[in-house]
Amino acid sequence: MAVADVPTPALLVDLDRMERNIASWQAMADRNGVGLRPHIKTHKTPEIAAQQLAAGAIGIASAKPTEAEVFAAAGCDDIAIAYPTVGEDKWARLARIAGAARVTVNVDSDHQARGLSAAAVAAGVTIRVQIEIDTGLHRVGLDPGDPAAIEAFARAIDALPGLELDGVTTHRGKFGERLARMTNAEAGHEEGSILVGLAERLRAAGHPIPNVTAGGSVTGPGVAEVPGVTEVRAGTYVFFDAMQVAAGSARPEDVALSILATVVSARRAGWVTVDAGSKTFSGDRGAVEGSVATGGISECVDLDATVMRTTEEHGMVQLGDGVSVDVGRKVRFMPYHVCTAVNLADRLVGVRVGVVETVWPIRARGTTR
Amino acid sequence: MAVADVPTPALLVDLDRMERNIASWQAMADRNGVGLRPHIKTHKTPEIAAQQLAAGAIGIASAKPTEAEVFAAAGCDDIAIAYPTVGEDKWARLARIAGAARVTVNVDSDHQARGLSAAAVAAGVTIRVQIEIDTGLHRVGLDPGDPAAIEAFARAIDALPGLELDGVTTHRGKFGERLARMTNAEAGHEEGSILVGLAERLRAAGHPIPNVTAGGSVTGPGVAEVPGVTEVRAGTYVFFDAMQVAAGSARPEDVALSILATVVSARRAGWVTVDAGSKTFSGDRGAVEGSVATGGISECVDLDATVMRTTEEHGMVQLGDGVSVDVGRKVRFMPYHVCTAVNLADRLVGVRVGVVETVWPIRARGTTR
Repeated sequence: MAVADVPTPALLVDLDRMERNIASWQAMADRNGVGLRPHIKTHKTPEIAAQQLAAGAIGIASAKPTEAEVFAAAGCDDIAIAYPTVGEDKWARLARIAGAARVTVNVDSDHQARGLSAAAVAAGVTIRVQIEIDTGLHRVGLDPGDPAAIEAFARAIDALPGLELDGVTTHRGKFGERLARMTNAEAGHEEGSILVGLAERLRAAGHPIPNVTAGGSVTGPGVAEVPGVTEVRAGTYVFFDAMQVAAGSARPEDVALSILATVVSARRAGWVTVDAGSKTFSGDRGAVEGSVATGGISECVDLDATVMRTTEEHGMVQLGDGVSVDVGRKVRFMPYHVCTAVNLADRLVGVRVGVVETVWPIRARGTTR
Repeated sequence: MAVADVPTPALLVDLDRMERNIASWQAMADRNGVGLRPHIKTHKTPEIAAQQLAAGAIGIASAKPTEAEVFAAAGCDDIAIAYPTVGEDKWARLARIAGAARVTVNVDSDHQARGLSAAAVAAGVTIRVQIEIDTGLHRVGLDPGDPAAIEAFARAIDALPGLELDGVTTHRGKFGERLARMTNAEAGHEEGSILVGLAERLRAAGHPIPNVTAGGSVTGPGVAEVPGVTEVRAGTYVFFDAMQVAAGSARPEDVALSILATVVSARRAGWVTVDAGSKTFSGDRGAVEGSVATGGISECVDLDATVMRTTEEHGMVQLGDGVSVDVGRKVRFMPYHVCTAVNLADRLVGVRVGVVETVWPIRARGTTR
């Protein structure tokens, strides 16, 4: 099938670009001697995780236990839950997965550590945990400026059966004015150094701390260069998006996913409307400060045209000077935040040289628990 | 099951409130002698459409042919596609549905009308069409200031086999500065009057135009009061949301859907983080000008607390003075734009007096084509 025959709206994956992104990030990790652990939130698709693992990834990361279940069922045997999971149902789910796979969970509170421990004991398994550190994104994690609290938490974890303290972890992105003034490499170097310093302090206090893991698609390459970091986690690099381009972590020609839409209305001069709105693009503008596109929601990659406004099923597209598009024409747009766009769809259409090569169901979509 | 035992994140439907909303809008339509056609985009759930139809609704509206298929399969036999559908696959789909149900489609272009006509002829069915008018939302529809173009389009439709010109339609919302200065009733009265005037002009030119349909949850009650309007369409009224409260079309105590989330982190003074982020709340701020909440993304309905920022799976909640919440606590939030939040979930949890009464799969989620 040709791309022009794909029903819209559709998410097209440029397979050449995706494979190049997978290979180049793996090469970056290998060059630095660190493990690469892709976060599957971006694609939610076991077939793509399999390609990342085949390229050399050491395992996967997910946010939710139900996501992890999908990938465990597909054969992933080393899964990090990059989230301070809280809830009896969720701890039981993780303990079940840990019966068949190596499971590592970010921990942030005594409440969570105790619950996870009880579930591990009940299931007769060991769950690895990594202490989550807040290196600037200010959403979860312990304050690195209070190492005594981190040491106390490490001791509390050591005292809990069924848990094994495996390391320290963080995800910082580039949030806030201070980080926005840094280069991506500088932000990554600092991120990695904070964790390595904490790991050394915990080791001096008698905790082995085999792993130091940090990163993301913006700071990951910088993190990987810090001696002592063992693992880099990142999700978006598999596809990239306009947010990553704005953040300087990708070039437009690296962006492997586009949104195909059909022009459904052309009744106003200089504007057309396409059949993709906020339920396709998502309204998400992400957490990378300074990277919000100023001109609109999504740029067309085929024409000088920009989605300036959306309602649920309509994208209002402003055309550049002299551009004219007829009703029925299909055009492609670059997503602003690809992870949230993928989360709204049910399938990815894999394309090579304008021809559909494969269609993948997004198997872990909807796994919010 | 008690609400406190529901795994999070979850969408809770207060059944008493929902039933009251359904009844009060039906009473509003009945009082004005107009038909009420609920748009199913808000709930995407046939069981709720069945309640709306049992209350007296004349049929349903949907945006996408694949949505319509779900409701046709559930027994809905009068479906309006409130969208200028474009695409061979979509026209064929609508013609198939029209073999078993009364199907009416918004039309906006010759390209669309010709394609729909060809599909209707090929399937041996008649498809009713309504000319879509742009009364201010500027996304689709013909300019009411150019009635000659509208008359020419009506003549073109009449010349096409398989189509029956059924009426004129619009959805205006309250977009733009001029409408923001009007009351909802004024905006609705003007919206209805524009359409009634156009319908009269088309009738004078020999087109029967049996139906004049307009509205939405903001302007619908005003539209219904305009003599000559035959039908009001609205979706959000079934649940309402913070956007509707801000727009003055609902009170907080009318909002029937809340997002249940668990506190997963409480490491920063004055803040906690919950397990619902942009993949649950949605990033959508809607199209109703002037209604964007200034203080944050979503208000907690159990405590003085507000989601101020989200990443995909994290909601960063600022606590009011003196409020303290422990990790593990479940709290409810009012969605900003409920339609886009429902679109992200797979099930609705129906609750009455704190107890789960039913769980509905959101059967038409993901039907974007």
